[in-house]
Amino acid sequence: MTTIRAYAAKKPKGEWEQYEFEAGELGPEDVEIEVESCGICHSDLSMLDNEWQITQYPFVGGHEVIGRVGALGERVQHLSQGDRVGLGWTSRSCMHCNRCMAGDHNLCLEAQGTITHQQGGFADRVRCHWGWANKIPSGVELASAGPLLCGGLTVFNPLIQYDLSPTSRVAVVGIGGLGHLALQFLKGWGCEVTAISRSRSKEDEARQLGAHDYIATGEAGALEQAVGRFDLVLNTTDAELPWDQYIATLGPRGKLHTVGAAPRIEATVFPMIMGQKSLSSSPTGSIATTRTMLDFVARHDIKPMIEVFPMSQINEAFELLRNGSPRYRIVLTQ
Amino acid sequence: MTTIRAYAAKKPKGEWEQYEFEAGELGPEDVEIEVESCGICHSDLSMLDNEWQITQYPFVGGHEVIGRVGALGERVQHLSQGDRVGLGWTSRSCMHCNRCMAGDHNLCLEAQGTITHQQGGFADRVRCHWGWANKIPSGVELASAGPLLCGGLTVFNPLIQYDLSPTSRVAVVGIGGLGHLALQFLKGWGCEVTAISRSRSKEDEARQLGAHDYIATGEAGALEQAVGRFDLVLNTTDAELPWDQYIATLGPRGKLHTVGAAPRIEATVFPMIMGQKSLSSSPTGSIATTRTMLDFVARHDIKPMIEVFPMSQINEAFELLRNGSPRYRIVLTQ
Repeated sequence: MTTIRAYAAKKPKGEWEQYEFEAGELGPEDVEIEVESCGICHSDLSMLDNEWQITQYPFVGGHEVIGRVGALGERVQHLSQGDRVGLGWTSRSCMHCNRCMAGDHNLCLEAQGTITHQQGGFADRVRCHWGWANKIPSGVELASAGPLLCGGLTVFNPLIQYDLSPTSRVAVVGIGGLGHLALQFLKGWGCEVTAISRSRSKEDEARQLGAHDYIATGEAGALEQAVGRFDLVLNTTDAELPWDQYIATLGPRGKLHTVGAAPRIEATVFPMIMGQKSLSSSPTGSIATTRTMLDFVARHDIKPMIEVFPMSQINEAFELLRNGSPRYRIVLTQ
Repeated sequence: MTTIRAYAAKKPKGEWEQYEFEAGELGPEDVEIEVESCGICHSDLSMLDNEWQITQYPFVGGHEVIGRVGALGERVQHLSQGDRVGLGWTSRSCMHCNRCMAGDHNLCLEAQGTITHQQGGFADRVRCHWGWANKIPSGVELASAGPLLCGGLTVFNPLIQYDLSPTSRVAVVGIGGLGHLALQFLKGWGCEVTAISRSRSKEDEARQLGAHDYIATGEAGALEQAVGRFDLVLNTTDAELPWDQYIATLGPRGKLHTVGAAPRIEATVFPMIMGQKSLSSSPTGSIATTRTMLDFVARHDIKPMIEVFPMSQINEAFELLRNGSPRYRIVLTQ
């Protein structure tokens, strides 16, 4: 039995309040993580607001956790107390279906989310199946690592999925929490990288993070000048883009991949036929992809840019996320 | 100088009439093919009717040509007079741009069509660049081979493009000129094949051609029963499908690939994210893919099912295409 001290909201759009609950017995394959820090993802806000109609209150958000292994279930073999681990969007998968066996644990039909099926990481402790508690390799800056576990993994996953070539010309649409990580990954990957944002306000930072070029869509004719230019356009926004215009920026065999949850996508087929183009999407990554990402992060010294709040100021942090524009990600520390 | 004896339409939806024209000097890299037979593709009808607003009259259609090399331009090296060759949708590409150099001659921005940039194969002779006159290997049944060059290549291209695994579960939507060839290719490829058509009228033939299973979408709940089932859905129709329903039939990483020219595609993004799914499209294949396909056809004894008309009955043949449903492709013979 563990008493977990968390911050919970009691109703949609409610304030975060101190909240204690009994976590029950630790499952035999579970790990209890002592939370050191936890990033805030936009989906924490969506869940707080019950935007997807699945939130149960009291609701404890938080799914970009860095911490140390506290307790271990009796069947957990490859982790030890004190190991530093990260936990992201997914906290459990069945581990034996065909998808899990193929390494696609993130696509498991019985996968459970850290904030959708249990209480999350805005707490002193959080639990998950051992598979989703991944060791943070030395070389990863711990203080800023939290956002890698959801935001980072989400934009890293397509690079693995497509076995992206370092010769590719890639555009990142939206320079925010996800986009600023995508730029760093793509720089490390060796690609030609273009940042796409509305205004020029993020140009300097985007170039420092890895962009070779920058397109401000607020400027007349900006996208028209990029016709036929990209092998991959990685859309990190949840806006309904002018899809046909973006498809026109693709070269032959080009892919327009969206990880942002725009409601619908709509496109004219003929240009897709002629250029052998595709539209696609993906969720966060698998366990294997998480580990590959963390090694890549260590080797390339990739760091989320963060603003830090003590967890006791969680309401101020959410206020900034809701009404401001953090550059680029917020991390709460215990 | 060659006088070509062809069948041309003088106006949109016009009758085909005998038409002679002077073809001019043969270009140094060109080949003149003595037409033995020519398939009729639905795009010949679209061009006849000026559906795409690009038809020039008098219009000579025909781009599924089988014939013998008659004359050769002075720089043509790898073909000889009398060689039996096939010519499809594309008759020329620049041969030196990055796309051509990468083997994607079909995506060349200066590619020219056999019936869009010149007079086509409803004639005793037709010309093309040597690259697009591909030798027909022994083992390919000549009388029925024409439809392979456009219809066949169009459905074969995605198998190459995706490096499709023989372990894949594939559905073919639309059992017509393209679909009946896709079934045969996929059978030879070793895949689990499902034919999807409106009614059960084509079931027996579809199973003979290679389908292991058959879905009649006219039956209530037919697609619902196929949820999560396919790795690839190959849509050969130009209808606006119930896209979201077809996306639901895809398993994780599944692809809904359309070679039929539906005007628009529209889909809900969230299920695509969760299943890491994609929507894509492609035109006919490259020169290399044409050759690979012809070898595959010979090895697997693949044969278009055709109805044959002498070229002098071209108007009757088009009447059948316009108002009937040929099973599955029409070939005109000289």
